Amino acid sequence: MSHSEIWSGRFNEPVSELVKQYTGSIDFDKRLAHWDIQGSLAHAQMLHESGVLSAQDLAQIQQGMKEIKADIDAGNLKWSLDLEDVHMNIERRLTDKIGDAGKRLHTGRSRNDQVATDIRLWLRDEISTIRILIKELQSALLKLAEKNADTVMPGFTHLQVAQPVSFGHHMLAYVEMLGRDDERMADCRKRVNRMPLGAAALAGTTFPIQRELTAQLLNFEQICQNSLDAVSDRDFAIEFTAAASLLMVHLSRLSEELILWMSPRFGFIDIADRFCTGSSIMPQKKNPDVPELVRGKSGRVIGHLTGLIMLMKSQPLAYNKDNQEDKEPLFDTVDTVINTLRVYADMMRGVTVKPENMRAAVLQGFATATDLADYLVKKGLPFRDSHEVVALAVRHADTQKCDLADLPLDVLRGFSNLIENDVYQILTPEGSLNARNHLGGTAPEQVRYQVARWQKLLAESFSGSLKSNNSLLSESN
Amino acid sequence: MSHSEIWSGRFNEPVSELVKQYTGSIDFDKRLAHWDIQGSLAHAQMLHESGVLSAQDLAQIQQGMKEIKADIDAGNLKWSLDLEDVHMNIERRLTDKIGDAGKRLHTGRSRNDQVATDIRLWLRDEISTIRILIKELQSALLKLAEKNADTVMPGFTHLQVAQPVSFGHHMLAYVEMLGRDDERMADCRKRVNRMPLGAAALAGTTFPIQRELTAQLLNFEQICQNSLDAVSDRDFAIEFTAAASLLMVHLSRLSEELILWMSPRFGFIDIADRFCTGSSIMPQKKNPDVPELVRGKSGRVIGHLTGLIMLMKSQPLAYNKDNQEDKEPLFDTVDTVINTLRVYADMMRGVTVKPENMRAAVLQGFATATDLADYLVKKGLPFRDSHEVVALAVRHADTQKCDLADLPLDVLRGFSNLIENDVYQILTPEGSLNARNHLGGTAPEQVRYQVARWQKLLAESFSGSLKSNNSLLSESN
Amino acid sequence: MSHSEIWSGRFNEPVSELVKQYTGSIDFDKRLAHWDIQGSLAHAQMLHESGVLSAQDLAQIQQGMKEIKADIDAGNLKWSLDLEDVHMNIERRLTDKIGDAGKRLHTGRSRNDQVATDIRLWLRDEISTIRILIKELQSALLKLAEKNADTVMPGFTHLQVAQPVSFGHHMLAYVEMLGRDDERMADCRKRVNRMPLGAAALAGTTFPIQRELTAQLLNFEQICQNSLDAVSDRDFAIEFTAAASLLMVHLSRLSEELILWMSPRFGFIDIADRFCTGSSIMPQKKNPDVPELVRGKSGRVIGHLTGLIMLMKSQPLAYNKDNQEDKEPLFDTVDTVINTLRVYADMMRGVTVKPENMRAAVLQGFATATDLADYLVKKGLPFRDSHEVVALAVRHADTQKCDLADLPLDVLRGFSNLIENDVYQILTPEGSLNARNHLGGTAPEQVRYQVARWQKLLAESFSGSLKSNNSLLSESN
Amino acid sequence: MSHSEIWSGRFNEPVSELVKQYTGSIDFDKRLAHWDIQGSLAHAQMLHESGVLSAQDLAQIQQGMKEIKADIDAGNLKWSLDLEDVHMNIERRLTDKIGDAGKRLHTGRSRNDQVATDIRLWLRDEISTIRILIKELQSALLKLAEKNADTVMPGFTHLQVAQPVSFGHHMLAYVEMLGRDDERMADCRKRVNRMPLGAAALAGTTFPIQRELTAQLLNFEQICQNSLDAVSDRDFAIEFTAAASLLMVHLSRLSEELILWMSPRFGFIDIADRFCTGSSIMPQKKNPDVPELVRGKSGRVIGHLTGLIMLMKSQPLAYNKDNQEDKEPLFDTVDTVINTLRVYADMMRGVTVKPENMRAAVLQGFATATDLADYLVKKGLPFRDSHEVVALAVRHADTQKCDLADLPLDVLRGFSNLIENDVYQILTPEGSLNARNHLGGTAPEQVRYQVARWQKLLAESFSGSLKSNNSLLSESN
Repeated sequence: MSHSEIWSGRFNEPVSELVKQYTGSIDFDKRLAHWDIQGSLAHAQMLHESGVLSAQDLAQIQQGMKEIKADIDAGNLKWSLDLEDVHMNIERRLTDKIGDAGKRLHTGRSRNDQVATDIRLWLRDEISTIRILIKELQSALLKLAEKNADTVMPGFTHLQVAQPVSFGHHMLAYVEMLGRDDERMADCRKRVNRMPLGAAALAGTTFPIQRELTAQLLNFEQICQNSLDAVSDRDFAIEFTAAASLLMVHLSRLSEELILWMSPRFGFIDIADRFCTGSSIMPQKKNPDVPELVRGKSGRVIGHLTGLIMLMKSQPLAYNKDNQEDKEPLFDTVDTVINTLRVYADMMRGVTVKPENMRAAVLQGFATATDLADYLVKKGLPFRDSHEVVALAVRHADTQKCDLADLPLDVLRGFSNLIENDVYQILTPEGSLNARNHLGGTAPEQVRYQVARWQKLLAESFSGSLKSNNSLLSESN
Repeated sequence: MSHSEIWSGRFNEPVSELVKQYTGSIDFDKRLAHWDIQGSLAHAQMLHESGVLSAQDLAQIQQGMKEIKADIDAGNLKWSLDLEDVHMNIERRLTDKIGDAGKRLHTGRSRNDQVATDIRLWLRDEISTIRILIKELQSALLKLAEKNADTVMPGFTHLQVAQPVSFGHHMLAYVEMLGRDDERMADCRKRVNRMPLGAAALAGTTFPIQRELTAQLLNFEQICQNSLDAVSDRDFAIEFTAAASLLMVHLSRLSEELILWMSPRFGFIDIADRFCTGSSIMPQKKNPDVPELVRGKSGRVIGHLTGLIMLMKSQPLAYNKDNQEDKEPLFDTVDTVINTLRVYADMMRGVTVKPENMRAAVLQGFATATDLADYLVKKGLPFRDSHEVVALAVRHADTQKCDLADLPLDVLRGFSNLIENDVYQILTPEGSLNARNHLGGTAPEQVRYQVARWQKLLAESFSGSLKSNNSLLSESN
Repeated sequence: MSHSEIWSGRFNEPVSELVKQYTGSIDFDKRLAHWDIQGSLAHAQMLHESGVLSAQDLAQIQQGMKEIKADIDAGNLKWSLDLEDVHMNIERRLTDKIGDAGKRLHTGRSRNDQVATDIRLWLRDEISTIRILIKELQSALLKLAEKNADTVMPGFTHLQVAQPVSFGHHMLAYVEMLGRDDERMADCRKRVNRMPLGAAALAGTTFPIQRELTAQLLNFEQICQNSLDAVSDRDFAIEFTAAASLLMVHLSRLSEELILWMSPRFGFIDIADRFCTGSSIMPQKKNPDVPELVRGKSGRVIGHLTGLIMLMKSQPLAYNKDNQEDKEPLFDTVDTVINTLRVYADMMRGVTVKPENMRAAVLQGFATATDLADYLVKKGLPFRDSHEVVALAVRHADTQKCDLADLPLDVLRGFSNLIENDVYQILTPEGSLNARNHLGGTAPEQVRYQVARWQKLLAESFSGSLKSNNSLLSESN
Repeated sequence: MSHSEIWSGRFNEPVSELVKQYTGSIDFDKRLAHWDIQGSLAHAQMLHESGVLSAQDLAQIQQGMKEIKADIDAGNLKWSLDLEDVHMNIERRLTDKIGDAGKRLHTGRSRNDQVATDIRLWLRDEISTIRILIKELQSALLKLAEKNADTVMPGFTHLQVAQPVSFGHHMLAYVEMLGRDDERMADCRKRVNRMPLGAAALAGTTFPIQRELTAQLLNFEQICQNSLDAVSDRDFAIEFTAAASLLMVHLSRLSEELILWMSPRFGFIDIADRFCTGSSIMPQKKNPDVPELVRGKSGRVIGHLTGLIMLMKSQPLAYNKDNQEDKEPLFDTVDTVINTLRVYADMMRGVTVKPENMRAAVLQGFATATDLADYLVKKGLPFRDSHEVVALAVRHADTQKCDLADLPLDVLRGFSNLIENDVYQILTPEGSLNARNHLGGTAPEQVRYQVARWQKLLAESFSGSLKSNNSLLSESN
């Protein structure tokens, strides 16, 4: 049956050309071919073991699919819009190759549970890839953190200088964010990794299927327990896109900082030339294109999230054609996230830190004022009075256009005679850093502890994912 | 200069392959080629008339562009990712063809104002097309309305039967919505149709350009008055996408109704087979795929709206690379809207109305209860008492499983002795329709009036747009 | 220090009245008072055990907070906009009561880590409540499912009749969806339940704090490992709002169905009068207001999701004032979800099923056509031929305006002589239901199995959450 | 009739308390009271002139409403949740006051057209206010622009120094954006200012109403031409929220720049202390809270836009309860926009420019490199060669850590012997500015021209809006 033919004896006319193009999905869903075949092979084997399909039929289907896979890999399969989607294209090609056995493959299933299965199989693999790439970006950030545990930079709040922080500590903040993104991907993957196959059109099938067997063959962790739910919900796709949006939001924040830091007004870092572009009319320009584009692409992914939620809102059960619109945003989200992570890890390895500029910036903005206030508190002054003493000292230093550490002792003592010569060591950026030496604090010792903690976590995880990746690969074969 | 070369003497290394692919836009912005050439020709002519470009240079550029256009139309221009975008691809091809004159074309402009000009020229044309297609859909709806001015159906609120309405009146509701969508497109087009060219990179240029002249050549209504604003804002694209979203929301509502009406539970309409599909496993199925897909695609366009807003949020002036991400959602929005309008108008011409089912449904749900209440008010009963009298009559009829009009006079008079024999004429669906005979009411007379009003408006508009479309065509040549 | 005073000796003028109102948060963040006190008490105790705060100071703080809590509970605490937010209001009140000890409470922390802690403590409790309410709604649905395991209704795809399903099975689809919503809430709660306290303003503190101790006192599962990340990210709030959006999308779907089913065109259910409203002018109306409002409120929560993502996009580290805007959408999301779940569970208990109408609808739409096709396949006909045979039989029955089961055997045999008398038992809705008797299928036996499975899961979960709820309560005391 | 009573004789039980709270709207829609009364008075007068209401009834209604208005203004009207919404509260109060005449007011209308009318009347007024506030912010920006026409700052693209621009020119970019925001508000107001009254519940009414008369009394520009459309669409609210979102996006961009410019790394401006806050623990801090909060609040408004679109998606005609959810996001959008514009105009008047820092920044980043390239082109060098010459000169200057203007002539001539002594005047920031002296360019002369142009436009507009505002005020009385 094809679009250019009529659907069945029930129809009076074929689908119009305009409609065929409007409703056809083969242009984008052919991407699922690999997983469609994977699902069909498991389904066929289950049908055989359940007595629905003969051994000969099964062997023919396996052989036919092997050839089709080779055709696809070689770019020899000609996708036809008349056959509407990836499922019909492959099934028709199979039937062309092996005849009646091909027509028996669709027994006990429907395109509704088939497509839901394909997407889940595909997305499961992509999430595994994304998780590996997240860790590779974390590794790149950890290297920067390790190298710059002692590099002091101004920590900003409200983009005003707040307190000195270690540049390594700053990088670790993103390692933490990415760590949560990875957790979310893992949590989401659990819910993706459930099998809809067997739900058939919406109600199950009258054939004696064994869903546990198919699930085992396809390495699914669980089986969807309700056929109506299995074919109609796409919450797993929305959950994934929400997790991807958060990942992109985190990268938009790091991108914003890279752009700021590379601006001559900051001059904190440089990004290697191979990640930048020039200008066709301004010969001096070197632009941080990659982080800017990543910042922009966060909007793209978030747009897909909105679109997918909108798609599902108010849909009555069970399957409606609306759901065909789930694929393009999902595909584009996966591609955007994967390409972004890949280029980002590469780029972070091309970041050069300029410690002298960072340190100079710490000295402009009274970054150690809190340290002075804490110093006075420890000498017995109530915090509120201490805060006021320091505010007046800051005001004075500001008129002198110098830092607190540049004021002579007698001037400082003019604000409080609790101040003694030992004050200068806490007024240095390094003194300030080292003083915040507790779990999660910015002291270089803590930075090194966190780097080691994460390196261990990643090493375990890589060896784990390698294992699971191997099984992934074998799944696909 | 190309991506595979280094940008200038300022750079130490070429752009990495990964970055080239991540940042290149030629895959999608080649779509702007036609308008890019249109803009370049006007720019060149202005440069010549301003004494910057010689007559010979101009002639060579014109000849070169003519050939390039022919190459593109014939599919012979090979777009190169190394040349990053449509502007560089065309400029390089021009220079290959005509030498130095080609290198002089970029004088007094930058890709920043060039791309902003291209998008506006392109979007201006697309909006014109969309406006024509909106009117064609309105025409299709008007035909249904005209034919069904007297067709009575249940008007629903809360999906409960409320009062009888004319099916023609119902169609006219969508004609009104589309009318406002068209207004918004027109309003938006005014703001699209302003020329950024001359803003150069961000600050204008040192060459003696005459922006008024270029604007006239390109048929722009206005000139962007500030160079920073001209290259950095994309509010016109967001405004367009918001207008497109509203249009799609309106179509999602009509789609929802078509789906309901075609469900056997309603059975109010049928949609011609050529707009429907069957099922591969359920032989009896005939599914309204097109309206379902339209309902789904409303999410797609709204997703693009969110994405574009997100893109612009918090961007400092002037141009940032983020803005490259404006194109794909915009292109896809235009394509979705145009394809949807096209298929929709076609489909509405394939809608068959089933008046007998509609009328039967009016009779189940006490649709004329309000008419009875109004009747009693006109006989002098206070509305609140009247409301209660009718509620009790409805409750009685409900137990009898009949309509109000099926109750004998003496039973009705049991609820209020103000009721007389003339009540039966207002209790019919037709009586109810005819009684709402004021501007905007559902009476068939009003429906016919509105159909005539809109037909006149559309006729004027079509002749107008034909004219403006002619000028559009001449613009493009 | 207060808004009406100047901030410190560094400032020349107080904040303007307009700004005070624009930037003040006390109107909404006073809602966090209970959790703010909870956090302060743990912080104070840790400071004492770390040698920073004397036993006497601690005792005074504990006594002062006890009184303030009583004041708040009694509605006696007057919140002041001059004191900007809940933290300053409580601290000032404490200092008014106990003097210097109150001023020492803020040692080693900042409002940045304080507010992040408050929100997490609060949200953790609200998620626990939401999880209980989800289960109560699941219980209500399970009761309906149990009672209606054998109730047959038309299963729709594309809102066209597809195959018979059990109404109990349909209810179970939503139990599954809500089950995943609950999983997501649990996963999200893990990430909410991590302690930022100790991050101070952004870099940690110079005081010898023991974060492990505070975390233990506050029952946090983990400690935020990076101070910059701890004060600046709100991904946990976005993740929660995304999970809440999915929950609302699921309820929007059920609402859509309830509205359809209660429409006279369907007539499948009735909703008790106490959940409906009438019309001020149409005496016959009874409107399903609650599901309509829930459908509408899904937009509200999704709007908050978009808003929160937009808020975080591109923010440089560490804390920026933008983040104050996280609270109102989060509060409203929690309120909307809690109120919706509460009213929904109540309403589902007020749903009356009309099995006779459902069964009548199954008989209009050839719901058992697939069963006939499967029947022929089992008799040896290839599926494609079988599909065509049934399509022609459907077409014939359609012209006769009867169901397949109403065609005499000889007529059926006219389409295929494989058909025998046993066909009539598979052509009944009940036969169709019973035939889909595998895991996840719609057979009443499967429905009963799933009801039992879920009842067991919920029973375990309720006893678990009761326990955890007790500990929650003790936390708060 | 009230919520605590049953709806009519058709209902068996009153609405449950939980439902009453879930569905009641009086908490927020009481805000519409003023406009509800305005609409009722016009409706009553029309009914009288159409012969439906006696002169005495009309007089009583007018007197009653006058008293109710006074009660509301004095805060004496006690809103009741039992009466559900603002319409029922006012109608009941009126009936309590004047008896039967009050009961006759609702003749020929329904709450469906009444609430649509109220929102439009209210929003029309708020848009007028917003338009005035936009112009006041433009005025504040124009003052800064006028004062700083000659102030040179680095123009950035990609946050890299691109070319010198006038700070006045930069301010004018935002004046342009706000100008388009104002246009959109005006365009939107046309579509808001159309009268739904007369549509009644959904189909019109059987009473002889004169909608033209009511429209005239209420100063509506047009009348909604279709009753179904009139009560069910909210596209005007979405269009307004989209326009408001764009306005907020523009302000998010200016806010981002103010925050950057006030950072010590830029040091381009200072914001008066009354718009900033300090830190409770960092005595040196002065934070730009207002622009940060505005940046954050852009997310809030965009969230409302998403929510409102989601609300309308797929709703069948005509009125559904979902639409009650339109009010809160709309109210909050209006409040956010009005408060933001108010505080922003005030704040811009408190911005101090630091020209010396801006000029110093221009000198770091080779801002005049394009000028040198243009110089060489004018001397006859092809642009591509010129671009390369300058790139090499920039690279050399970079190694010398000096600007191009600091290189001696012989060094410059080493790159191209076309360079002569006159080069130094084009290499100054001021020379660069002045050279861009065309419409829209950054030359101070152009800045002054644009300031004058806008001042004239605003002056005309203010006198116009004053007039229209007067008529607005009279409308309200």
